[in-house]
Amino acid sequence: MSVTRKDRRLLFIGAGERADDWVPAFAAQAPDVPFIVYEDGMDVGAFRYAIIWRPNPPVVTQLSNLEVIFGMGAGVERLLGDPSIPDRIPIVRMVEPGLTGGMVEYVLWQTIYHHRRIWELEEAQREARWVNQYYPAPWERQIGILGLGQLGSAAARLLVEYGFKVKGWSRSRKSVDEVKSFAGAEELPQFLEGVEILVCLLPLTADTQGIINAGVFNQLPMGSILINAARGGHLNEADLLQALGSGRLAAATLDVFHVEPLPEGHPFWLHPRIFMTPHNASLTHPATAAIEIKRQIERHESGLPLEHVADRNRGY
Amino acid sequence: MSVTRKDRRLLFIGAGERADDWVPAFAAQAPDVPFIVYEDGMDVGAFRYAIIWRPNPPVVTQLSNLEVIFGMGAGVERLLGDPSIPDRIPIVRMVEPGLTGGMVEYVLWQTIYHHRRIWELEEAQREARWVNQYYPAPWERQIGILGLGQLGSAAARLLVEYGFKVKGWSRSRKSVDEVKSFAGAEELPQFLEGVEILVCLLPLTADTQGIINAGVFNQLPMGSILINAARGGHLNEADLLQALGSGRLAAATLDVFHVEPLPEGHPFWLHPRIFMTPHNASLTHPATAAIEIKRQIERHESGLPLEHVADRNRGY
Repeated sequence: MSVTRKDRRLLFIGAGERADDWVPAFAAQAPDVPFIVYEDGMDVGAFRYAIIWRPNPPVVTQLSNLEVIFGMGAGVERLLGDPSIPDRIPIVRMVEPGLTGGMVEYVLWQTIYHHRRIWELEEAQREARWVNQYYPAPWERQIGILGLGQLGSAAARLLVEYGFKVKGWSRSRKSVDEVKSFAGAEELPQFLEGVEILVCLLPLTADTQGIINAGVFNQLPMGSILINAARGGHLNEADLLQALGSGRLAAATLDVFHVEPLPEGHPFWLHPRIFMTPHNASLTHPATAAIEIKRQIERHESGLPLEHVADRNRGY
Repeated sequence: MSVTRKDRRLLFIGAGERADDWVPAFAAQAPDVPFIVYEDGMDVGAFRYAIIWRPNPPVVTQLSNLEVIFGMGAGVERLLGDPSIPDRIPIVRMVEPGLTGGMVEYVLWQTIYHHRRIWELEEAQREARWVNQYYPAPWERQIGILGLGQLGSAAARLLVEYGFKVKGWSRSRKSVDEVKSFAGAEELPQFLEGVEILVCLLPLTADTQGIINAGVFNQLPMGSILINAARGGHLNEADLLQALGSGRLAAATLDVFHVEPLPEGHPFWLHPRIFMTPHNASLTHPATAAIEIKRQIERHESGLPLEHVADRNRGY
């Protein structure tokens, strides 16, 4: 390694099984960012950069020269909530086209699934029963997106392009073409009015913990749909079961849960109107993430500010 | 009705239950095209225009002044195959944005479903089993579309925009951006090579009857997927079951069948890797269809040629 060049080694503290995808991606896309997979007992004192999936406190406390933490996903609440990470170290949220594209794909796929009430067809197929089923045009369907950040606004744009009616809600007012933006707690009721498919892509913060609850469900039309692809902590799970039982909600798609993996015996497992994916709605793509991380490291080395740095006060 | 204006009344010979959607759509979108729902015993001799779902020979033979037949869907093989319809009467295939959009929506939805092997997750959910599942990026997935007409090329464009690798096959060579076009029987083997998700949107003709068979499946990679949203007649159903049994195909989505409704006891009903919709992959939207039919009637009255007229020699 050149002595005039700063140490660009990146320490990977992640789900071990994915290292096999990350190593070749960095070798191909960012060969000047040596990618080092953390192993127990490794001397990590010299690393300036780390990419972390879940905090591992004993390792983090040994990173005495750390300058930047890259989160491996879009949500960084676990990193922000880890007291072993000093406040001075910036935590960069992962924003890369593979991750955004995957989430948009998930939201569109599940929106179409519920828009067409495909669960009715699945139930009919299990009973070997043919049904003459019609469904409205996309422009007759009102979608509401909680959260209009990187992921929410990308999903909103695609759903609009696709012909759906879309409105969005977020902490502060946002501008997305053809998407009516509602902001703050006081505008939540107006936002919820008439929403037939409610999609949650919020960050998990003190303000949004438990935000999807009976109070929200009761403001939706009867027979509405919930898609939660954000965090389990956004949802009051007991309220969801009750809303499905009363018919206020017709069905729900969940990618995230209070406890993951979802525990054995949890009532969601065999609920006929809950469709689940194992927290893989979207995956960070190593190839496109490598390009993004290299770009950010180059900014940092040039004295430019890092982008997508989590705000500790805001909580994301 | 003005005596100087030609008789624009349109006779609707369709699935009765949908008339309730069509009547108000014409009233709103094409009020100068009186929409008349056929009833038994009606005197139909004066009608110049008819829109027909399935041919009804006794009615058709009484339409002595008929100038144009509008098909109610994209496929017109039943109308072309009806000897009671004189060759001189042009048969217009339905091409309207609602129908095209619905088919594109269906193909995208089912492509994402299989791209992510969601059936693996559904199987796991039924066993209350959490799986750590990864899946490739869209640009690592090869889609092949049989048929690059109105519907096939629209689906291809969206899948490309979406990031998938797409190639297409049709009778004659087509030009769709970033979609490699293969043409004719001699190029079918090259087209099939490496196709992981095969989508059929062909017209049903003498040449395409039974085209999806063991010979085709054996040229696909192991574990491939079939999506048939065209006509049941394209598929050799016994060959499909065999290909699923051998693992050549991992799963299939079918919207259409040799016999519809699919008969009781048919092996497709309870096959764990066949996902079925009841021939409703896409629906003609009365509102947008009314605008299109009015446009075509105005062309016809002005002496301009009708568009999307089926070619009796080509068979679609």
